Amino acid sequence: MSLNQLIRVDGRKGNDLREISFVKGIAPHALGSVLIRCGNTQVLCAATVEESIPRWMKEQGSEGGWITAEYSMLPYSTIQRKSRDISRGKIDGRSQEIQRLIGRVLRSAVDLKLLGQRSIYIDCDVIQADGGTRTASITGGFVALRLALDKLLTEKKLEKDPVFKSVAAVSVGIVNGEVLLDLNYQEDSIAEVDMNVVMTSDDEFCEIQGTAEKGFFTSQQLQKLITLAQGGIKKLINLQNQIISSEG
Amino acid sequence: MSLNQLIRVDGRKGNDLREISFVKGIAPHALGSVLIRCGNTQVLCAATVEESIPRWMKEQGSEGGWITAEYSMLPYSTIQRKSRDISRGKIDGRSQEIQRLIGRVLRSAVDLKLLGQRSIYIDCDVIQADGGTRTASITGGFVALRLALDKLLTEKKLEKDPVFKSVAAVSVGIVNGEVLLDLNYQEDSIAEVDMNVVMTSDDEFCEIQGTAEKGFFTSQQLQKLITLAQGGIKKLINLQNQIISSEG
Amino acid sequence: MSLNQLIRVDGRKGNDLREISFVKGIAPHALGSVLIRCGNTQVLCAATVEESIPRWMKEQGSEGGWITAEYSMLPYSTIQRKSRDISRGKIDGRSQEIQRLIGRVLRSAVDLKLLGQRSIYIDCDVIQADGGTRTASITGGFVALRLALDKLLTEKKLEKDPVFKSVAAVSVGIVNGEVLLDLNYQEDSIAEVDMNVVMTSDDEFCEIQGTAEKGFFTSQQLQKLITLAQGGIKKLINLQNQIISSEG
Amino acid sequence: MSLNQLIRVDGRKGNDLREISFVKGIAPHALGSVLIRCGNTQVLCAATVEESIPRWMKEQGSEGGWITAEYSMLPYSTIQRKSRDISRGKIDGRSQEIQRLIGRVLRSAVDLKLLGQRSIYIDCDVIQADGGTRTASITGGFVALRLALDKLLTEKKLEKDPVFKSVAAVSVGIVNGEVLLDLNYQEDSIAEVDMNVVMTSDDEFCEIQGTAEKGFFTSQQLQKLITLAQGGIKKLINLQNQIISSEG
Amino acid sequence: MSLNQLIRVDGRKGNDLREISFVKGIAPHALGSVLIRCGNTQVLCAATVEESIPRWMKEQGSEGGWITAEYSMLPYSTIQRKSRDISRGKIDGRSQEIQRLIGRVLRSAVDLKLLGQRSIYIDCDVIQADGGTRTASITGGFVALRLALDKLLTEKKLEKDPVFKSVAAVSVGIVNGEVLLDLNYQEDSIAEVDMNVVMTSDDEFCEIQGTAEKGFFTSQQLQKLITLAQGGIKKLINLQNQIISSEG
Amino acid sequence: MSLNQLIRVDGRKGNDLREISFVKGIAPHALGSVLIRCGNTQVLCAATVEESIPRWMKEQGSEGGWITAEYSMLPYSTIQRKSRDISRGKIDGRSQEIQRLIGRVLRSAVDLKLLGQRSIYIDCDVIQADGGTRTASITGGFVALRLALDKLLTEKKLEKDPVFKSVAAVSVGIVNGEVLLDLNYQEDSIAEVDMNVVMTSDDEFCEIQGTAEKGFFTSQQLQKLITLAQGGIKKLINLQNQIISSEG
Repeated sequence: MSLNQLIRVDGRKGNDLREISFVKGIAPHALGSVLIRCGNTQVLCAATVEESIPRWMKEQGSEGGWITAEYSMLPYSTIQRKSRDISRGKIDGRSQEIQRLIGRVLRSAVDLKLLGQRSIYIDCDVIQADGGTRTASITGGFVALRLALDKLLTEKKLEKDPVFKSVAAVSVGIVNGEVLLDLNYQEDSIAEVDMNVVMTSDDEFCEIQGTAEKGFFTSQQLQKLITLAQGGIKKLINLQNQIISSEG
Repeated sequence: MSLNQLIRVDGRKGNDLREISFVKGIAPHALGSVLIRCGNTQVLCAATVEESIPRWMKEQGSEGGWITAEYSMLPYSTIQRKSRDISRGKIDGRSQEIQRLIGRVLRSAVDLKLLGQRSIYIDCDVIQADGGTRTASITGGFVALRLALDKLLTEKKLEKDPVFKSVAAVSVGIVNGEVLLDLNYQEDSIAEVDMNVVMTSDDEFCEIQGTAEKGFFTSQQLQKLITLAQGGIKKLINLQNQIISSEG
Repeated sequence: MSLNQLIRVDGRKGNDLREISFVKGIAPHALGSVLIRCGNTQVLCAATVEESIPRWMKEQGSEGGWITAEYSMLPYSTIQRKSRDISRGKIDGRSQEIQRLIGRVLRSAVDLKLLGQRSIYIDCDVIQADGGTRTASITGGFVALRLALDKLLTEKKLEKDPVFKSVAAVSVGIVNGEVLLDLNYQEDSIAEVDMNVVMTSDDEFCEIQGTAEKGFFTSQQLQKLITLAQGGIKKLINLQNQIISSEG
Repeated sequence: MSLNQLIRVDGRKGNDLREISFVKGIAPHALGSVLIRCGNTQVLCAATVEESIPRWMKEQGSEGGWITAEYSMLPYSTIQRKSRDISRGKIDGRSQEIQRLIGRVLRSAVDLKLLGQRSIYIDCDVIQADGGTRTASITGGFVALRLALDKLLTEKKLEKDPVFKSVAAVSVGIVNGEVLLDLNYQEDSIAEVDMNVVMTSDDEFCEIQGTAEKGFFTSQQLQKLITLAQGGIKKLINLQNQIISSEG
Repeated sequence: MSLNQLIRVDGRKGNDLREISFVKGIAPHALGSVLIRCGNTQVLCAATVEESIPRWMKEQGSEGGWITAEYSMLPYSTIQRKSRDISRGKIDGRSQEIQRLIGRVLRSAVDLKLLGQRSIYIDCDVIQADGGTRTASITGGFVALRLALDKLLTEKKLEKDPVFKSVAAVSVGIVNGEVLLDLNYQEDSIAEVDMNVVMTSDDEFCEIQGTAEKGFFTSQQLQKLITLAQGGIKKLINLQNQIISSEG
Repeated sequence: MSLNQLIRVDGRKGNDLREISFVKGIAPHALGSVLIRCGNTQVLCAATVEESIPRWMKEQGSEGGWITAEYSMLPYSTIQRKSRDISRGKIDGRSQEIQRLIGRVLRSAVDLKLLGQRSIYIDCDVIQADGGTRTASITGGFVALRLALDKLLTEKKLEKDPVFKSVAAVSVGIVNGEVLLDLNYQEDSIAEVDMNVVMTSDDEFCEIQGTAEKGFFTSQQLQKLITLAQGGIKKLINLQNQIISSEG
């Protein structure tokens, strides 16, 4: 069955993204912020700046700056309340892995030498989790970063735009043998394969993470997943451009 | 000078509250949730339920349930980024004090024996901090709790409403010798006296915490502060009642 | 019934303090130390000095010094053994709140600019807990601080006495509808209202913390509690002065 | 230039694995253990068994067992000494990510329901790190697991072999524009793209993790990397089979 | 020079103990408590009881009870303030070693099977440290334990006295080539050899810990140190017996 | 019965060491490393160097360097898997005590002033535990240290050999009333007395730690234990010398 014939639990076709929307300026004390909604998934993404660099960079005598990310699920973002990291005394392994991914991806999109001796934090706090929170964090995190850098450029704190290219992320997966774009939680929880793909505005790959949850996947399936992700990313990059260039 | 002649930094008179608004249902996975705005202060308040009680209650063989609160400032809520508790490895002393206060106050408003063997968490996450985050958390936290309990009553999980009375909180203070209601951050940071007052819908006191930040205060000043708080609380209780009974 | 007719569990009248005594020099390695006894409550209060200031003060370029407090209940101070903070891996929320209070109050009594670039620690270790440990810690802590400052003045390490005024603290509460001064544990555990009041030698307020434990309290009750506390504080300030000026 | 013409820093061609060897029984108290060497990278892999399952599994009433992995670099495995996790007070983010990957991959190879109510720990301690420690841990970890399960089968503690398929892992990357198999540390540290691939004995994918470290990669490059990894995995699976079936 | 000719910094001869005194009942909420003073060293020793045993004992199905010790130096016990364990986030290595020693020694003096299913905590909090705090903690800790057990015997909670023998501890050392008994801090800090000896009322050894701090020691020196310790222990056991059998 | 008539569980006589062997260079990234085997006990000992000294030494303005040790049991070294320190969130009390001992002993053998402003870490990781891991760590740790210092001497980073004397350690004990050398785990677990003795190549004592596990021990028994240890140490020093001076 072709992807655009398949009807999914929420009425989408196989190659449909969920409805995506952005609200800019949600956290006014941040230099750039956006609330991203991908279907029922909602993530607060905020970029804040510190006019210093991490100690290890100083010790290495690095020029330029740093970008780091923090990802956290608010306790009420899940159907069963999720206790805070600080209550358990340590950061959740999954959260740590996700925030390392977000930071790595956003750094790859930026020429850190042009940032100056400053650190940019990208905080991603999930208000509602319905699948795809890490990809929404990357897609929204890039918007928050872009808004913050635009402000630094306007304020003449940066001379030159340090961004190489836009980046966005989407999930793809195999559910009941069908290749699907942008899985929601219900689909994700029964998927045979789950893959997160991060790409640039020039159709290149930044990061691929594919995991067989049940059984394994073949070269042919891998190819289909990649192609599907490419289509989704193009739409996301367009939506990012619209919100970034909008007034307000 | 009388309170309603004085003009404050943000144009308010001495006995004016800041503009207060509520958005219900901001965190759909929670049983009750509200975004409270008091001027520029914004707090996400969400009530979630676990069908079990803390271990120490079990060991004591307690009937009834428990209400606890968690308060946290999101890193981008302040003008200088505030690092997360988990990054520093321990909960902030001030946050711990505030969440103990919120929990204590909300428990005092509820007959815990009527709650059944369940725990209600009131999470208060500050999105923007401009003074009065603890009082906004109490006022908004009560709304989230009330919405959650209404849902439990509708679902017949509670037989009888366990709430004794509404509670709300407001700050008062002395700034440059003047007694002021509902201080914003700019006022709070230079106040001689800072006082948080929690009261019921029947004009009784639930909690008073007054601190001399510079110098000390007299019995006369104490009396004025209390009277001013009483007026503010009445308005807040009215606003709470409106949002709770509104559709949606 | 008037306060001085009421007979309490330990034979006191409503407006009686418990028996108060002080032993100076209990910890000879500290610069100032005192064992305060309020009835059966006993707290070791010691002031020690470090010739440096906290890092955040240095970073702010602050003149002057700092005063901080640490409060801890020894494991054998309570009837049920209380496990040490380090055994549970984190400081008790209640202890943290109390030590923040003690520090705040003692700092308000002192002109920190006159302290020089030094830090004074006020350690309060409870040997026996029978209610009122936080107020005993403040009252005793001020004595330890005063003794330490006197030594610094004698040693010419301070040019000018940095203390503005004496401070002392007492609890008041409502038990079975009666307003009582200086509650012991038995009274405290059944109190409807519990209030801690910190005042100066000039009958001004430094801090008020009142909590309704069961039900709520009215403006009239608040007024009575405050008046009762004022009387108790006067006596405590007198006793502080006696021990400070005594030989040895 | 074709892969088998290219000469690398250590004399290998582009599609050569490093020399691989295994020493069985290195940790006699473990149920299965192996020292894997991939060039200069050395990892101690040991499988130990506990006759109980994690609490969350009990609470879910799960049938079957669990497999989990712990990965750690010994302090002297790197050229600059790496301080122990316990000295820094928390597990290294990178280590946590790696041990989650190892555990996930090994669980995918096993029918957990056939394991019985027991937990298998796969410990991977790196003695010498020269690139590819995570893939060596997976390849060696599978051998340790296989040896432990063989012992449980021999001891009749398992009725049926729970392993679906063998799994092994290898890294591929792009260095100076060339696609290379099994990067050593020197290559890895300058690679433009780094990819870890985990596959089964049936040429299927279990996990793909590809990261652009500098610049980005195209669909064509992705295809080449995948093909190169497939060749390496086949050789590794053969070597695993040899050591598993060897005497001793 | 013979030991009783040598004159030490504090006027003692080589084989003199410092002045020892005990104050019983210093912590009235404990079942047994004593303040031990050995010269300027002062330690609060308290025995408290919990009517349960540690989880690991339950899991082993052990009969009888457990004795454990906690040792802590109060921050003002040393000349330079010593920060609390909880401020550094972990227990001091030296403190942990000492409390393991105290617990081990006291357990060796008691038939744990006769204790019943209860745990006894021996808390040793140092108020003033002038050398020999660990040996004072053992000597005083045994008294606190003995007093607590006597109370349990009186209350008929124990049928039979579980104590095998009395134990006490003393330090010996080599300072400037001279063998000395019961070192104070000044002596201890320059000692070539430091040895702690724990013995019973029957002149047997319970524990010996000797360390060469500078250089090493010979068999002959070892013999002299042992003999000196034996003499000191005899006196300490006598003093313990006096305070235990005294009124009050 | 004389020591050389007694036949032990593993066939040894009372005064036999277990079979000892060393493998040099086991961790090639370390400056010096050795795998020591004492019977079934196996410990990885590695010496690594950092060209800086601890902060506390800098603050004291100390000349010279520092030696510190870290001891850890790998999870699969024991018959029941031992969870890692980081999983329990704190270092094991026993491990901390042992690593303090190893560090203290190795420092006593070295003139720290001749080390230069550098720190040497001696890591001891137990691969297999069968009794005597702390003494094996000392004996092997000294070899690793010696090898590292030889390399620093060869590289002209040290002008003069800072080692005073060789040190080695052995356990002795009383089992079923018999005095035995070098206890294995089975003997250790039933021993009445357990003693660890560290000595130099000149038959002097560096450290003695003797503990009565059941009952107590007399002066006569102490003498016998010491004599037995002296004999064992001599053989160990010989074996150390052989491995240190061997090729490779």
